Formats: sequence, structure tokens, C-alpha cells
Amino acid sequence: MSAKTSSGNFFEDFSVGMKLVHATPRTLTVGDVAVYNSLYGPRFAVQSSEPFAQAIGYRQAPIDDLIVFHLVLGKTVPDVSLNAVANLGYAECVFGVPVYPGDTIRAESEVIGLKENSNKRTGVVYVRSRGLNQRDEVVLSYARWVMVHKRDLDAPAPPTVVPELASVVGVDDFVIGALPDRLADYDYQLSGSEHRFGDYAIGEKIDHVDAMTIEDAEHQSATRLYQNTAKVHFNAFEQKESRFGQRLVYGGVIISIARSHSFNGLGNAFKLLAINGGRHVAPSFSGDTIYAWSEVLDVQVLGTHQRIGAVRLRTIALKDCKASEFARFNESGQYYPSVVLDLDYWVGIPK
Amino acid sequence: MSAKTSSGNFFEDFSVGMKLVHATPRTLTVGDVAVYNSLYGPRFAVQSSEPFAQAIGYRQAPIDDLIVFHLVLGKTVPDVSLNAVANLGYAECVFGVPVYPGDTIRAESEVIGLKENSNKRTGVVYVRSRGLNQRDEVVLSYARWVMVHKRDLDAPAPPTVVPELASVVGVDDFVIGALPDRLADYDYQLSGSEHRFGDYAIGEKIDHVDAMTIEDAEHQSATRLYQNTAKVHFNAFEQKESRFGQRLVYGGVIISIARSHSFNGLGNAFKLLAINGGRHVAPSFSGDTIYAWSEVLDVQVLGTHQRIGAVRLRTIALKDCKASEFARFNESGQYYPSVVLDLDYWVGIPK
Amino acid sequence: MSAKTSSGNFFEDFSVGMKLVHATPRTLTVGDVAVYNSLYGPRFAVQSSEPFAQAIGYRQAPIDDLIVFHLVLGKTVPDVSLNAVANLGYAECVFGVPVYPGDTIRAESEVIGLKENSNKRTGVVYVRSRGLNQRDEVVLSYARWVMVHKRDLDAPAPPTVVPELASVVGVDDFVIGALPDRLADYDYQLSGSEHRFGDYAIGEKIDHVDAMTIEDAEHQSATRLYQNTAKVHFNAFEQKESRFGQRLVYGGVIISIARSHSFNGLGNAFKLLAINGGRHVAPSFSGDTIYAWSEVLDVQVLGTHQRIGAVRLRTIALKDCKASEFARFNESGQYYPSVVLDLDYWVGIPK
Repeated sequence: MSAKTSSGNFFEDFSVGMKLVHATPRTLTVGDVAVYNSLYGPRFAVQSSEPFAQAIGYRQAPIDDLIVFHLVLGKTVPDVSLNAVANLGYAECVFGVPVYPGDTIRAESEVIGLKENSNKRTGVVYVRSRGLNQRDEVVLSYARWVMVHKRDLDAPAPPTVVPELASVVGVDDFVIGALPDRLADYDYQLSGSEHRFGDYAIGEKIDHVDAMTIEDAEHQSATRLYQNTAKVHFNAFEQKESRFGQRLVYGGVIISIARSHSFNGLGNAFKLLAINGGRHVAPSFSGDTIYAWSEVLDVQVLGTHQRIGAVRLRTIALKDCKASEFARFNESGQYYPSVVLDLDYWVGIPK
Repeated sequence: MSAKTSSGNFFEDFSVGMKLVHATPRTLTVGDVAVYNSLYGPRFAVQSSEPFAQAIGYRQAPIDDLIVFHLVLGKTVPDVSLNAVANLGYAECVFGVPVYPGDTIRAESEVIGLKENSNKRTGVVYVRSRGLNQRDEVVLSYARWVMVHKRDLDAPAPPTVVPELASVVGVDDFVIGALPDRLADYDYQLSGSEHRFGDYAIGEKIDHVDAMTIEDAEHQSATRLYQNTAKVHFNAFEQKESRFGQRLVYGGVIISIARSHSFNGLGNAFKLLAINGGRHVAPSFSGDTIYAWSEVLDVQVLGTHQRIGAVRLRTIALKDCKASEFARFNESGQYYPSVVLDLDYWVGIPK
Repeated sequence: MSAKTSSGNFFEDFSVGMKLVHATPRTLTVGDVAVYNSLYGPRFAVQSSEPFAQAIGYRQAPIDDLIVFHLVLGKTVPDVSLNAVANLGYAECVFGVPVYPGDTIRAESEVIGLKENSNKRTGVVYVRSRGLNQRDEVVLSYARWVMVHKRDLDAPAPPTVVPELASVVGVDDFVIGALPDRLADYDYQLSGSEHRFGDYAIGEKIDHVDAMTIEDAEHQSATRLYQNTAKVHFNAFEQKESRFGQRLVYGGVIISIARSHSFNGLGNAFKLLAINGGRHVAPSFSGDTIYAWSEVLDVQVLGTHQRIGAVRLRTIALKDCKASEFARFNESGQYYPSVVLDLDYWVGIPK
């Protein structure tokens, strides 16, 4: 390999406090929105319609929060997780100012924790990453930890630092100022759902009914759109030798599919406020058919915003299994084999 | 299923005169145009080039008429045909004012007929649907009838109302005011065809020569772009148990492929004026290769527009069969098994 | 076949000096950029970020040079190579003024050479093609020669004219005025690479490491985006009877994949200056996994531009074979079976 080619960082290349400026700022456009729509078919009116978004107080139709999430994550891959064994988790993921077509997003990370594994072959790297727009406003902030290979097995272990991360983002940490303020003009007929914040009760479960079968061309296109270069998604030739024998679907594809399905039952949950945590329970492959269901974990009014309430959801994505049974754990408390995603997050819903 | 999840309307949920406001207005953009181009490769100069469109009198390059058709139809699916057994027909489909990037389209329908079937398990629902832009101008209007399941087989039959629908849209019903008015500046070299209105004769048949093989990733992307949620197109897992054993291609994909192929022989037929009727004769699946041919059924001058004439076409799409034999009916007057689409429509061609 | 349907030009239809105005001008948009990004995932900062492009002196982020190349080539297909047996070569390909979203590209060609083959069944057609924007500025110019079928085997052979074409585009032929002029503001952290012009040495080889497996839905979408109608890419039904038994991937797809991979090692080579020649050594098919490596063939300062230097590269694309061995020729001087592309071109890299 030439000295000019980046092979990514290995565990011993990281140190706590290290700052990473990730490559390739990206201007998002209506083109990205259309490609995203063709891949997932989302139907939330706020992101779909300029007049609808403007009526409630947005400057224009905001870009889907998950496009921003995937893009920022994608930018961190070459520096953080090119040599990752596994994505272990997310936490404290908060969505910031809205992103509009024409905005340019770049990403930065800081290493906030390191822990070598007892096998001395791998270690866990904790980073806090931020997405910023062209005015240096934060559009997204999250912590993530990944298990990374060591290049040199004899490299000394760094001091162990494990950051304390909140298991749930508190209501006070939401970026309330970024929410639209004219919700009185929200049209519940055009949005496709009459259900408001007050209609959701803790413990309620919703089968999102819809399902979608993933093709290799689709998940590859999605992952490239975010400029995510993780090899396992694109290289069938080498994946043949892996334990899965084929390309893996980027976990974010499952998140986007589940979110699109969630329109059926959560049609007014137009805003992602925060992601508390997510687990990619099992890998997905081309040919898998993805279903989803959600459970309401909490409901919270926002003291500083009269017209939107926060609903905490657990959304479970299943493969090749209808969601009508709300499958998650078996009797032994272990995930059913059909579960591929367990996502815990907050959405904003008009009151 | 949660009470919040829509399971769509069943036959007994409809009544004549009922108005339906369909969900999710959609702002169309140059992004949608590009995705559409990547899926079908249309080459009509008016839609492809801003200067070409502006030279003949459009404000900017209009969005392909079929994008508008698919989008409006897609919006009606959750309310009209989520529980459909079959799409039975279209009629009186008239294209209205041009749609430009930045316009936002929403859809409304009115139930204009109902007829329970003798098996008392299904019934036919007739609707008239309209697509409207952000200024409430009509961009598309059509009647459609679908066979819909009953939820409750004991529900009483409604009074039978079968609307009278024209078998052919009359020339006077075209929205002439929406046509461009500077056709003298139409460039027949850049358009790729020298053939004008006067060159087409009733009875003439044209083999469009080109062919295209459909992939699952392609028809799914197309159908999602229109926010069409009909389950049979996306769910390989459940379709395995269907009589087809696999996902069905949305019929509109075949229409768009045939229209793109028709450039070869109809290169100046840049404008869809109306669709008289269409029949999806047989289903299409991933792997099918689609050919098309057209027959000129009629030619009409437009009294109020000096520079464009109307040509009525029958376009037949075939799968895995070249169009050079102009196959349609066999000796018994039945469709050949290769026929998948029989579409009867009017196009505008410069004089 | 109807007289209205174009069957393309055959060998005897061409004459030296003949001018061809190709059909369907095409306005490029941010939608095309997004579709291209989803198909190849390029990461060069100049094309990805408006602020980055503007900082170094572009009016806005320019459209990827290869989109322009594929588009112009695609426009020439119906007139030049619809009846081609094979693409034989390119030469003297020079990129002109930058293309921005909103620009409209059309294409013209002139026949510059003809040579009937000794079998009297085919002949070689040499054309010089130009892409022009809406202000008639040249965005691309190149010579290309293709082997084309005769329609009538008895047609007399034309006088043989074989144009002299340069094997390498000279530094003085680059369109220097089209290069940005504020390279002092080029940000080497955001671009993802610290390597400048002076860091590249003749003979240096770079393994681009990344790999991508091609799907039929992907190469078809790419080829349609360029309005390229060559049948072999889209028609699985007829290709079953061909010697390959399946659809062929448009060679330009391989060029774009290799260029995207080349970011890894050539992250600041943001500008294609010229293509000296290219050879599609072997066909590619759906399922092939493409790798790439490059060798530095030459480095040249540009007398009239202080801040950019020209690096001549040979980029080799391989299928189902890692690039780490820099495979090209075997001991007999013949291409290894894994080689699919051998491309010789100049890139601009900041000093």
C-alpha cells in the first residue's frame, strides 16, 4: 500500500482528547432529498412539502433528520471506524438546527474514552462527534463507541477512560429553539394522521404494518450517498470469505426503513429530537424484508414550547417476520432471531 | 394492529359523493427529475433542456407528465386502493397546467360510483381524482375504478351507481391554454426527430425498437419516489405466498418505460394531452425485458392552437418479445401472453 | 421497422467532414449530482461542497468532470455507435470550461476518418466530438474511433482516411483558464489528504484499496442518467443470445468507479485536465467487484498557473482481484484477465 493511501486509524492511534477533523464537507441538495425519497419513500408532510413546512414556521422544507445523521456518521467512518470490528453503540444523540437544501455539512470528533480489551488485540474507542453547517452551527451531536483492531498487537494499552454517558437524553437537552413555532397552522388532513401528542400513551404499541425488501443496489446507493466507505457494504468479492458470506447492509438503512414505516401510526411525528441509543441486534442482507413496530416509552411536555410534545419510542425492526406480534425478547429475555434493530429515541409531535 | 394505524378503506367504507383529501403534499424538484431520468432515460428535449423549453414558451423545463400522473395516483393509494384486488381501469384522464420544479402537488378524490360484486366479497369503487398545485390549479384529473375487498362480508350492498365515462377524451377537453405558444422556435435537429404532426397517419404502426430489463431495485425506487405504498411492490416475503410468488412491478413503471421507448419514432410527441384508457393486461416482474410499439388511432387539429396537433396513440408494451411483429391480439381476439400494457392516449406534436 | 424509427448510422452512412448535431440537449442539475453520488460515492471536496469550491475561486461547486464526459458520449451514441461492434479508443480528450448545475449541454461531432476493414463487413469511424454549454463554450472535446457494421455489405469502400491523433495531450492544450485561481485557500484538512503536486513522483504506484461490486440496477441507472441508449447495457433478453450471455456494463461506469476509488491516495486530484487514451480491456458484468490502482507516468508544471500542477496517471481497474499487486501485464506482455480498464489521463493537483 502506498504511503499516500489511508488505512484508517487503529486502536493505538487514538488518544483521549484527540480531535479529528473529518474529510469532505458535503452540500446537501434537493437531489439528495429525491434520492433518499426513492430509497425509502418517507411520507412526513413537513419534509415532503415546501408550503406545509413554511406554514408551520420553517424557512423551507427541512432535510430529513436521518439524512443528516447518516451523512455525519459517514464522514467519521474513514477516521474512526475503518478498522472497526463492530459498532457497539450510540448515546446522547441530539439533533440541532434544521438543515435545508443548500446547507453544507462537515463533521468533527473528539476521542472521549479508550479501553483496551483483555485479548489485547482490540479496544473500544469512544468519540463524541458533531455535525456542523456552513455557519458553524451544530446540526447533530452524538457519542459513539466502536471496537477497533490494533495494528501492532504489542502496542502498549492506553490508560482506560470510560466516559459516563446518559442512557436517555433529557428533555432539557433538546434544541427547542430549532423547532417550528406556528404549529397552529399544521394541517392534520394533509399530514395524513389526526393523532396528536395527547393521543399517545405510555405502553402503547403500534404495528407499522408496511414492509420493504432490501436489494443490494439499494443499500449500496444509500450508503454511497452518505459517502460512507465502510468496506463490508460494497465488496461482495471479499465478503464471500467473511462469516456472513455476503455484503452487509449498513445499519442506518434499517433505521431509515423503520422510520419510513413508522409513518403508519406516527404520521405527525415529523421531528427527531434525540436518539437515546440504538442496537443493531443482527445483520441484514439483500433480500431481507424489513417490518417495524414501536412502543411508547415516555411522553413529556416541553416547558419552553407550547405546541409540540416529546414522545419517547422504542422502534423494533424485524426481518422476514410481521410486526403484529410485537416481537422483541423471547422467554429467556434474548432477542428473537428476527430482530435486527432496537432503537430508543425521542420524536416531536404537535399537541 | 393499533387504532392509530390505517388499514385503508374497504368497500363498505365508501359512499357516492364522499370526498377524500389525500395525505402528504409533495414538492417536486430537479432531484425528482434526475431520479426519474436515471430510471427511464427519457430523451424528449422539452423536458430535458431548460433553453429548449424556454425557447418554445415554457417558463422553465416542465416536469415529465408521467411523474405527475404517478405521483397523484400514488397519493390516492392509501385511501382508495390499499385493499384493492385489482386496478380495473382509467378514463377521462386530462393533463392540466404544467408542473415545474418547485411546485407542490396534492391530491383529492370524489367517489363517483359503487357496485358490489355478485360474490358479495368485493365491489367496484369509481373515483374521480384531481392533482392540484400550490395555487389550487388542476394539474391532472382522471377517473379510475378498482375492485376493493369488503372488510365485513355481511355489510349491506350500497345502491349501485355506475358513472358514464367517455371512452375517448374529446379534443375540446384538452387544456389547450397550458400548451406552449412559440412552437416556431422548436428546433427539430436538437429534438432528434424531423417528424411533425402532419407526418403521422391513422393506422401507422411504429416499432420503438428499444428494450429495457427491469430490476427489483429499479421498480421499487420508482414506486417509492411517487410515495406509492401498495404492498405488492415491496414485500418479497409475503409475495412468496401470493399466486405470483414474487413482487409485482407497479403498472406505472411499464407506462414510463413504454413512453421512454416511444421517443424512437415519436421524438417530438413531447406533451401528453390525455389518457383515454389503459389496461395492465398482465403483471410484470423483475427480470422482464420490456419492448413497445404504437399505432396511430386518430389525428386531430386543435382549433384553438395553430402550432400543435393531437395524435391518438395505442401503445402496447410487451415482455420478452420484440415489438417488430406489432403483437397485440391472437387469432381468437385475445391478448398474446407477451402483452403487458395496452394504453390509449393523446399526445401533442408540433405542426 | 417504421420509417420514423432511427436505426442509427451504418458504416456507409458516414463520410469524412460530415457534421452531426446530436439530439437532446440536457440541463444538468443538483439532482444529477446526487444520483451520481449515490452511484459512485465520490469524495473530492471541490465537487462535494459549495463553500469549498467557492473558497478556491469557482462560482459554485462544479459538476464532476466524468458526468460531463459520460453525458457528451451518451449523446453521440444514437448517431455514431448504435451499430458499433466495439469501441476502439479515445484520444485528445480535453476538459473545457467548468459545468455548473443549471448549465445545458449539447453535443456535436465531425467525422474525421474512415477505414473499411478487410472483411468488408465493418469499418472504423473516427469522430471528433464536442460538448457545448448554453453559451456555446466548449466543455469537452475528444476524438473517438469505433468499429461499425455495414448495412449493405456491397456498399463501396470510402477512401481511407486515418487521422493523426496525439498519444498524449500536451500541457499547452489544457484549458488553463478554466482552473480556479485561489488555491491558497484550499483546505488540506477538509479535503482529506495532505498530499500536493510535489509529493507525487514518476513511477510511484498507488493501491486505491477500496472496491465496489456492480449491480445491474446500478449500471443501468447510471447509463440512463447519461441518456445513453446502447442496447447491450439494458436488454437481458437479447443479451442471453450474445457471446456474453448477459448485459454488459457501460465502460464509463468502470471509469467512474476507478475515479472514485482514486480518492484514496489522490484526494487532492480534484480536476480532470485531459484523457490521453483509454482501453476497455475486458467487459464487466453485474456481480463484478472493481478495484483500482494508479501509476504516476509524468508530472508537469503549468507555466501559466502557479498553483496547480499536472500529474499524468495510468489507472488500472481490476475485477475480482485486489489491486495491491499492481497487476497489469503478465510475463508475455498481455493484460491479466482481471484487468478491465487501462486509462491514461492528466489530473490537476494543487501545489
